[in-house]
Amino acid sequence: MRRGLVIVNTGDGKGKTTAALGTLLRAWGRDFRVCVIQFIKAEGGNWGEVKAARKLDIEWHKAGDGFTWLSKDMDETIAHAQRGWALAQDKITSGAYDLILLDEFTYPLHFGWLDTAQVIAWLGANKPPELHLLITGRNAPLELLDYADLVTEMKVIKHPYDQGIQAQAGIDF
Amino acid sequence: MRRGLVIVNTGDGKGKTTAALGTLLRAWGRDFRVCVIQFIKAEGGNWGEVKAARKLDIEWHKAGDGFTWLSKDMDETIAHAQRGWALAQDKITSGAYDLILLDEFTYPLHFGWLDTAQVIAWLGANKPPELHLLITGRNAPLELLDYADLVTEMKVIKHPYDQGIQAQAGIDF
Repeated sequence: MRRGLVIVNTGDGKGKTTAALGTLLRAWGRDFRVCVIQFIKAEGGNWGEVKAARKLDIEWHKAGDGFTWLSKDMDETIAHAQRGWALAQDKITSGAYDLILLDEFTYPLHFGWLDTAQVIAWLGANKPPELHLLITGRNAPLELLDYADLVTEMKVIKHPYDQGIQAQAGIDF
Repeated sequence: MRRGLVIVNTGDGKGKTTAALGTLLRAWGRDFRVCVIQFIKAEGGNWGEVKAARKLDIEWHKAGDGFTWLSKDMDETIAHAQRGWALAQDKITSGAYDLILLDEFTYPLHFGWLDTAQVIAWLGANKPPELHLLITGRNAPLELLDYADLVTEMKVIKHPYDQGIQAQAGIDF
């Protein structure tokens, strides 16, 4: 009864990417072929999850340029997102994976760097039915939520930054 | 600036345990010493996460008896939870770990198999300040939320079971 799910982790809270990593670990535990494309985050980043993926020999692509709210070169940011999506399309149609994670993919959609309707139409026509697709990020467009099978909102109830506690290596990144 | 966080993943949605697994993976990626104690779930379960933990050589204890709403032998279920908590106390005070996950630990508290006030008083007096403690499960008691540094609620927005799609190996378990 294998059925490829489209899963979206969204909301303002912690745990969107973290839960995706947990799904990745669970899938990897079952010898699924997995692949990660990280949008937004810069190529040089060496987070705990990247170190773990390297140790696990999980294929991991960084398609971001470290975009922040202060970024000035939007052309470059948009070009990165578009190259990331082209790479995702290759991976999705390759048949080489059981699970593909598009981390922070909601941002290129939300900001209009990619056309949400076109992306979803393409997925509808090209995603292999048995492939699980996992998408994370805030502000998931409504069309994406309509297309998804499973949507979870991660909501902040209490946050240590509010109490002056800094982000912790190995926990937050 | 290492500060051991008390993290609670709660709510009715997917992703509580899954996000905890992601945190575990991230921590493992940074060579943290990690330990998992699973409450509720039965000893025999061989889920994707258990397979992954075995491959990663992560210490993993199952302290549950597979309790469900239909369980009849509540004395046995309660004894399992109490043995699990005694084991957790040993691990917490051992100094041998950077991160301990108490999976589904909210249930013994919620159902009163363990006394929440006593558990929190014990943690307040005995948890090493640099140890990260991660607790998952629905119905986290308010005293636990007060004690925690970081609380995230996982909320269902859309669920495939509602559309008649079965749980998928490698994704859901």
